[in-house]
Amino acid sequence: MTYCVGVLLKDGIVLGSDSRTHAGVDDFASFCKMTVFERPGERVLVLLSSGNLAGTQAVISVLTQNAAAPLVDEKGKAAAPTIWTAHTMFDVASVVSNAMREIEIRDKDHLAKSDLTFNASFILGGQLRGEPMRLFRIYAEGNFIEAGAETSFFQTGEAKYGKPILDRVLGPSTSLSDAAKCVLVSFDSTMRSNLSVAMPIDLICYERDTLEVRKRRRFEPGDPYFGALSQEWSEGVRAVFKRLPEPRWK
Amino acid sequence: MTYCVGVLLKDGIVLGSDSRTHAGVDDFASFCKMTVFERPGERVLVLLSSGNLAGTQAVISVLTQNAAAPLVDEKGKAAAPTIWTAHTMFDVASVVSNAMREIEIRDKDHLAKSDLTFNASFILGGQLRGEPMRLFRIYAEGNFIEAGAETSFFQTGEAKYGKPILDRVLGPSTSLSDAAKCVLVSFDSTMRSNLSVAMPIDLICYERDTLEVRKRRRFEPGDPYFGALSQEWSEGVRAVFKRLPEPRWK
Repeated sequence: MTYCVGVLLKDGIVLGSDSRTHAGVDDFASFCKMTVFERPGERVLVLLSSGNLAGTQAVISVLTQNAAAPLVDEKGKAAAPTIWTAHTMFDVASVVSNAMREIEIRDKDHLAKSDLTFNASFILGGQLRGEPMRLFRIYAEGNFIEAGAETSFFQTGEAKYGKPILDRVLGPSTSLSDAAKCVLVSFDSTMRSNLSVAMPIDLICYERDTLEVRKRRRFEPGDPYFGALSQEWSEGVRAVFKRLPEPRWK
Repeated sequence: MTYCVGVLLKDGIVLGSDSRTHAGVDDFASFCKMTVFERPGERVLVLLSSGNLAGTQAVISVLTQNAAAPLVDEKGKAAAPTIWTAHTMFDVASVVSNAMREIEIRDKDHLAKSDLTFNASFILGGQLRGEPMRLFRIYAEGNFIEAGAETSFFQTGEAKYGKPILDRVLGPSTSLSDAAKCVLVSFDSTMRSNLSVAMPIDLICYERDTLEVRKRRRFEPGDPYFGALSQEWSEGVRAVFKRLPEPRWK
């Protein structure tokens, strides 16, 4: 499984992803599920991947290859927009969607022979110069939704364990730092209750209008900050718990 | 959906269930999912039901009807054990399992026509005189597992949202009162994040060796204690959150 979170705030965007992939409990591995496309001063795009690794890797490769191709073909015809040339975040989301559909069309009949479906999905967050920051959840079918003031975060993968803390803490005005802590606590809760989500955790805290990634961290197993956060959270929560009023019985 | 929790502690057993049933968002209703069979001084049995309501209600009716039948038939042959005559909690679990299989055999071909399966499952907790308290999780197939020192709680239904708090707080030595609070917080987290779980919540706190239910409460929507618990928990958690160390960025 996987756990990814993207949070859109007034001050920026927080994006986090775990690294565990598995095909059964006896076949698990670690892969980074966060891909950054960045041209400082011009655009920052972050993709968080969920779903079958063959599918998500293929989509990222198509995006990268297309982005590296010439802008015009030999006949002088302009190439289709890429993640570097798309003019809006909406268009970037469409570029990702097109790459997903390309892979889905290529693979679907072959996957169907093993009762599998193309299930890659993405969280896309970022900003292009001249546009506000935007955050999208792109479904396996290639259609997508965009975060707004009422729904400021998206999760993919093993989302339920870590949702209550996001629901309790996050709002559009939450500070970037608090949101980063909240996302890490959400990962901690998920990893405690589910073996299919695991460190390292990749975390980006993008600050509005900076148009470059200035805060990025990878939390490896045994990371001292993450360990302290986890312990203080656990102890704090238990202390709150102890002070809750006793149930009264009629 | 449904959410049920049973917790086995040194001091007793805590059992909680929500009341929402639904067949799509435009067809939902409220049904108590907690059934108590009690003969003070002799046995206390509590069943928490999950799964298709037609199935769980039929199982409870079979258990009740069989329990009310004569102990011997007209030829003087002893009837099969019932929830009142079974000698151990293990045998009670088998009685429940037999009732489930009876309904499953009756219904399965008819359910299959609509691509449905018999999916009733139960948490069974209680105590018989002369035996320790025991807690079981009975799967839809009628097989079952029993809680022990390392795994002191079972959940059914929409279990993921409320699992982190149980994982953080509960152990075999947790007091009954703390466990009851923990179960209620777990319901609160679940109901905030998922519409298919809803009040009223039925809660029993069975005290070891009392062989009767002395603490039972139904928390209706707007219950002042539950409201206070929910608010204090939310505020406390947010305060803990504020004090967590800031992430450091390399």
